[in-house]
Amino acid sequence: MPDLDPLLFGEIDPPQRLLMGPGPVNAHPRVLRAMSADLLGQFDPEMTGYMNQVMALYRPIFGTGNRWTMLIDGTARAGIEAALVSLLQPGDVALVVNYGRFGLLLQEILTRLDVRFETVDAPWGEVVPMEAIREAALRLSPRVICTVHGDTSTTMAQPLDGIGAIAREVGALVYVDATATIGGMELSADRWGADVITGGLQKCLGGPSGSAPITVSDAAADLIFTRRHDEKGIRAADAVDGSGRRIGSNYFDLAMIMDYWSEKRLNHHTEATTMLYGARECARVTLAEGLAARYRRHKAAGAAMSAGLRAMGLTLFGSDAHRMTNVTGVFIPEGIDGERVRTAMRDHFEIEIGTAFGPLAGRIWRIGAMGYNAMKHKVLITLGALETCLRAEGASLPAGEAVPAALAAWAAVMEAA
Amino acid sequence: MPDLDPLLFGEIDPPQRLLMGPGPVNAHPRVLRAMSADLLGQFDPEMTGYMNQVMALYRPIFGTGNRWTMLIDGTARAGIEAALVSLLQPGDVALVVNYGRFGLLLQEILTRLDVRFETVDAPWGEVVPMEAIREAALRLSPRVICTVHGDTSTTMAQPLDGIGAIAREVGALVYVDATATIGGMELSADRWGADVITGGLQKCLGGPSGSAPITVSDAAADLIFTRRHDEKGIRAADAVDGSGRRIGSNYFDLAMIMDYWSEKRLNHHTEATTMLYGARECARVTLAEGLAARYRRHKAAGAAMSAGLRAMGLTLFGSDAHRMTNVTGVFIPEGIDGERVRTAMRDHFEIEIGTAFGPLAGRIWRIGAMGYNAMKHKVLITLGALETCLRAEGASLPAGEAVPAALAAWAAVMEAA
Repeated sequence: MPDLDPLLFGEIDPPQRLLMGPGPVNAHPRVLRAMSADLLGQFDPEMTGYMNQVMALYRPIFGTGNRWTMLIDGTARAGIEAALVSLLQPGDVALVVNYGRFGLLLQEILTRLDVRFETVDAPWGEVVPMEAIREAALRLSPRVICTVHGDTSTTMAQPLDGIGAIAREVGALVYVDATATIGGMELSADRWGADVITGGLQKCLGGPSGSAPITVSDAAADLIFTRRHDEKGIRAADAVDGSGRRIGSNYFDLAMIMDYWSEKRLNHHTEATTMLYGARECARVTLAEGLAARYRRHKAAGAAMSAGLRAMGLTLFGSDAHRMTNVTGVFIPEGIDGERVRTAMRDHFEIEIGTAFGPLAGRIWRIGAMGYNAMKHKVLITLGALETCLRAEGASLPAGEAVPAALAAWAAVMEAA
Repeated sequence: MPDLDPLLFGEIDPPQRLLMGPGPVNAHPRVLRAMSADLLGQFDPEMTGYMNQVMALYRPIFGTGNRWTMLIDGTARAGIEAALVSLLQPGDVALVVNYGRFGLLLQEILTRLDVRFETVDAPWGEVVPMEAIREAALRLSPRVICTVHGDTSTTMAQPLDGIGAIAREVGALVYVDATATIGGMELSADRWGADVITGGLQKCLGGPSGSAPITVSDAAADLIFTRRHDEKGIRAADAVDGSGRRIGSNYFDLAMIMDYWSEKRLNHHTEATTMLYGARECARVTLAEGLAARYRRHKAAGAAMSAGLRAMGLTLFGSDAHRMTNVTGVFIPEGIDGERVRTAMRDHFEIEIGTAFGPLAGRIWRIGAMGYNAMKHKVLITLGALETCLRAEGASLPAGEAVPAALAAWAAVMEAA
């Protein structure tokens, strides 16, 4: 087979897009620079030292003292599947708190794992009342209550205070997908009583997709270790398997992954070193800013975006009381072709805003301001560009109202601090 | 919870280790630089253009014209599991061609998938004769014949010419784990008749772990698409599921992943953009060198390492006829503590050589020369350092023989071209 001429495809040189959709967003430059460091052997003491630092750095980000706080080598969705396949086995019963696409994803994964489940649902644009979760949990006695902290498909954030108490009442564990909020809205694993939380780098943490931070409570780890089964080829002669059913995936076997991140350093996959460097730098950037300051900055960005969109005369999607701070849903005005506006935003301003899924496809845009992009000037630029593109498409809008309204809303949040 | 002082952990600044183990090895600097480019939205035309380029770039590396040639977002092991969970379902029968730790890993994954299998085995240090594979395939009529191209645990490379003909004879497909050889030894998916091959970046391709190139034949894709089940939340109103059993993993569902890499651009995971940039650059570096030249360079490095070790009076592990070119197993001399030598290599020379697994643990070292490290000077430096460290530990060795022998062996391979 003749070699392909590699010059057909030039140096990597992506256009400088401002990514104001529901994620991924632009990475913090420090994160990308950290990822250019050369590699280490996976059991090099310098490498295992970095792994231990990652564990320490992510504990405050998850709001936990959990020993088992580490990375899954894959995108955020890999973290979700690792949690569910390790916590649940075929025939188990789960409760899914569902209010958007990512609640549907939890159900999809559970179906593939042959886990039985029921859902407690809210319409898209709302969240599930805690009392409804409790009633369903009491009725079902699930092994795990599964939910999503912020579902970008609807831009809603599910309140989670009290979910741990419900779980304890019925003998369940709690799993939370926090992909879309980690680093941007407060995670409080210990206060919530959430046993396993997973995230991703590509939203509020300001890194690239491809590494999924995870935290696991001692109670969840105890359950998972009952399913321990060290693989052939590396198992010690005196290895003792757990009494539980072997976890249905090797790659996502949290028992082996925890052993890899422990002093045992059980060889499993080859740690994705460059992604680990990136995840470490995301956490350092986040903690250097300070979590409270970072959450406030996201809140200011969300408030500014919302105020600006409303000043343009647009209507926001979903409940004001439960809006995520880092992504805002807004109805596409009557008579406007949403995709033409998105294309104009990209062609004229190099700005990306998001489309929508399922029942909201073609009805709303999702506009993000997260991580390195949750900044005043990026919100203002986006609003100004959107106003221009909408007017060019013939929308009847008040001119010049959005940006000042956003400025005022930004200031109101920051000054309240 | 108080914020952690991020200054506790400084800037990323790993020591400059020369990684001459079985992988990971040092990344090519061009690959790391490519990974510092900023991100793009996952459906940005520039991004999908890069995805299409990756498909084109990896076809010659796999030795195939397969349309379905792409990346799995995870380490090499993720690629293996994606292949097996998508090709096989509970109750299916597989044949595993097993001659080392990674043949054991295939069995481990199949067990977790409730796939029945038999093995056709060779002792560690040998490979499985093609006639034995054929006999087992005729007896078993498996759905898939699974094997490993190069198993770093034993440093052996399994010949694969003819395996496709056997598979056709019994109506099977062929899966090959080529993690340890891709980019260093010739892969010939189409000539072998291998339906699915997976790899990783962190060995001969000179990139970081975390992305798994994969190629899928049309026959394998046809089978996988019979199991297509688009997930809730993104499935089109007119989506038609396949008649086969739903794939047991969402993250590793090759039907959805192929749809994501096709013109359909079905939303699945969020592509790991930075790893994709890295994978793209690995391929460009590989193809710019030329595949034949690259395979010859690895052969020269392996020949030089072997000649040098033998000139020191050491004994190589395994069959000379089936040695991988990029990693060499060598017995630890009688009376020498292998771990003390490895530590001295690291402490004095900043060179890492590999330990071993299972029945070979403590008996052999595995010394790699792959990707960016399959270079004459790195082989020579490693041999000189090993000689020094062995003599310091009291080994009785001829002084100054290894490096000239390696030089001569390198030249012999390169001049034969």
